[in-house]
Amino acid sequence: MENFIFNIPTKAFFGKGQLDNLAAGIKEFGGSRVLLAYGGGSIKSNGIYQAVLEQFSKAGIFHVELSGIKPNPPIEDVYEGIRIYKENNLNFIVAVGGGSALDAAKAIAAGAKYDGDVFDLISGKVAVTNAAPLATVLTMAGTGSEMDMGGVITVGEEHKKYAILHPLLNPKFSILDPEYTYTVPTHHTMAGCSDILSHLMEQYLRPDEDAEVSDRMNEGVMKVVFDNAPKLLQNPQDYNARANIMWASSMALAGFQFMSGKKFGAFPVHAMGHELSSLNDMTHGITLALITPAWIRYTLKVAPQYTPMFARFARNVFGVTETDDTKAALMGIEQLEGFYQAIGMPSRMGDAGVEESQLEYLAEKATEFGDIGTMSPINKAEALEIYTMAW
Amino acid sequence: MENFIFNIPTKAFFGKGQLDNLAAGIKEFGGSRVLLAYGGGSIKSNGIYQAVLEQFSKAGIFHVELSGIKPNPPIEDVYEGIRIYKENNLNFIVAVGGGSALDAAKAIAAGAKYDGDVFDLISGKVAVTNAAPLATVLTMAGTGSEMDMGGVITVGEEHKKYAILHPLLNPKFSILDPEYTYTVPTHHTMAGCSDILSHLMEQYLRPDEDAEVSDRMNEGVMKVVFDNAPKLLQNPQDYNARANIMWASSMALAGFQFMSGKKFGAFPVHAMGHELSSLNDMTHGITLALITPAWIRYTLKVAPQYTPMFARFARNVFGVTETDDTKAALMGIEQLEGFYQAIGMPSRMGDAGVEESQLEYLAEKATEFGDIGTMSPINKAEALEIYTMAW
Repeated sequence: MENFIFNIPTKAFFGKGQLDNLAAGIKEFGGSRVLLAYGGGSIKSNGIYQAVLEQFSKAGIFHVELSGIKPNPPIEDVYEGIRIYKENNLNFIVAVGGGSALDAAKAIAAGAKYDGDVFDLISGKVAVTNAAPLATVLTMAGTGSEMDMGGVITVGEEHKKYAILHPLLNPKFSILDPEYTYTVPTHHTMAGCSDILSHLMEQYLRPDEDAEVSDRMNEGVMKVVFDNAPKLLQNPQDYNARANIMWASSMALAGFQFMSGKKFGAFPVHAMGHELSSLNDMTHGITLALITPAWIRYTLKVAPQYTPMFARFARNVFGVTETDDTKAALMGIEQLEGFYQAIGMPSRMGDAGVEESQLEYLAEKATEFGDIGTMSPINKAEALEIYTMAW
Repeated sequence: MENFIFNIPTKAFFGKGQLDNLAAGIKEFGGSRVLLAYGGGSIKSNGIYQAVLEQFSKAGIFHVELSGIKPNPPIEDVYEGIRIYKENNLNFIVAVGGGSALDAAKAIAAGAKYDGDVFDLISGKVAVTNAAPLATVLTMAGTGSEMDMGGVITVGEEHKKYAILHPLLNPKFSILDPEYTYTVPTHHTMAGCSDILSHLMEQYLRPDEDAEVSDRMNEGVMKVVFDNAPKLLQNPQDYNARANIMWASSMALAGFQFMSGKKFGAFPVHAMGHELSSLNDMTHGITLALITPAWIRYTLKVAPQYTPMFARFARNVFGVTETDDTKAALMGIEQLEGFYQAIGMPSRMGDAGVEESQLEYLAEKATEFGDIGTMSPINKAEALEIYTMAW
């Protein structure tokens, strides 16, 4: 087992009515002048916005709003948030929404305490050394941004995605009320489940066979996703299923997976998926469902020494009883594909609107900063092969 | 699923050579004058003591020692540590050792910032509101004290055990080097495994069937203990097995189990086991192995509505395939008893030196502050029945 550092600085208030802890939490971390960041207007129609304002009002908390943060949040929204934060002499950020609002808020938190262009931090040219304190109120499960240290920001005409990562960007606390996700459309709920699953798989399907604690915990959370996503297809108001999916989202990226030698590094499926989103604004979770099976088949071919790991995935998560590793690994992929199909994910990139002529461009962009991959390096030619398999 | 608050404030440095982070960690939390607390002399013979002093010396950290903390740490050791801390105007505590040194250090941390008698805090008469910052260097896996908020202190002639619990007592950070446990005698290593397992079972075998994320994670960590304890019997120097057991110890009580409706409350097996330790200084992990099977059989009898939960335990952890819940639950107990036997735990209290005439006294003491239990309340008569089943 490799060395690791374990650190989960975010506190979570989980369950019905936990928004009641918002104002006290802000004050505990010294907040009195708040940037309230959110996306579209849905939080106004479902009552969350009003409840947040009640919290502010009762506690005498001043706030200014940044509304309309867009999906796959663009750096322009981040600039606007930083401007508002600085101009109004604010000292705390509350992000309400799904991954987009939360990710944008993290970049704003970093930029609010930086004198230069926040792109320096987003691109990794300059390391984050300070950040405004942040709390989140989650309204959609999937990205794990509510408990992790990262955010993904879209930059430029080509919609390139950059991940800004630093423990200072972990929310101080997160309010996780599963009822807030009742109104998320089924299609997006299922894309969120695909995202959670990908976070778990990208950390589980990696070298270091000996990291048994995190591997067994990871298998457990994967099973929760496989068991509960179908329940939400049947009944979107199933509280326990909403709660289990929301907490699976938080646990998947909180940090107990990264340790045990599983260093936070390249998430190759995410890297390739991001290019699909950049190209045609495809929903993040869908891109992951499209790429993952192809990536596994490709890895089995070029790095067959990891076949036992994929076989273990099939056995421990799906209950495959086949004793031959290669056969078991393939049965695991089939189970995974069956799950994606059951929750309404498209199974081919071609069906999802991608042209074959675009694949080379995707492969070029996915590897433009160097090889990606974990068990085997993936350069442009190899990325093209994976995209082609998925197309 | 019930509401919960998730909070793991302790940072862990896990792996070979992580002691190198000790001095920087102390300084990060404002420490410059340290109480170094430890037990017997083993840390001097295995080199850990010297390495700690090197860290202090290099960083110009002043320290005073509290040595000789006894197993099942008595409140007298806590008083002595508080006296040294206050008299020397110290500002940080480093505990090196297993659960006893760490637990004592937590009570010292609370008492160091309290003007009255620390027994007020240990007995729960007065709530903890402040504590000295603490770091730990673990040399024996089992109690989970390295990542949790509690400590158990022995008080008075009857050796009554009290648990002092508060998030302020979570270590700021813990150094977890599995190599430090190489020299722990096999018997104590296995008792530690029994303790880890009990922490997991006492949180898993509780109401709230819907807390799937923590339940599946918990099952995963239990499997790690069942798989790795036998490896350490074969080879005490098996690094990966030592590492997996050590991290299982930390994860078992770190706090991700308490949520999902599994409130931190009565640990009935621990409560009954503590009385066995009080009576004849029996090793903690052994008492748990003696009580657990009897407690499960008793619970199945008086609270048969929980049979499916025990059946799930048997199926998900031991791979029992029996479809009848009652039969499956009993097969789980047999598997558990087989494990205890394989790692050298005594199977009957009578074989471990307890007299039948002592059982009523044990039952009296285990319930002297009120009923214990989770799925069904356990009063004196019921505790006597469980002790008798275990005898």
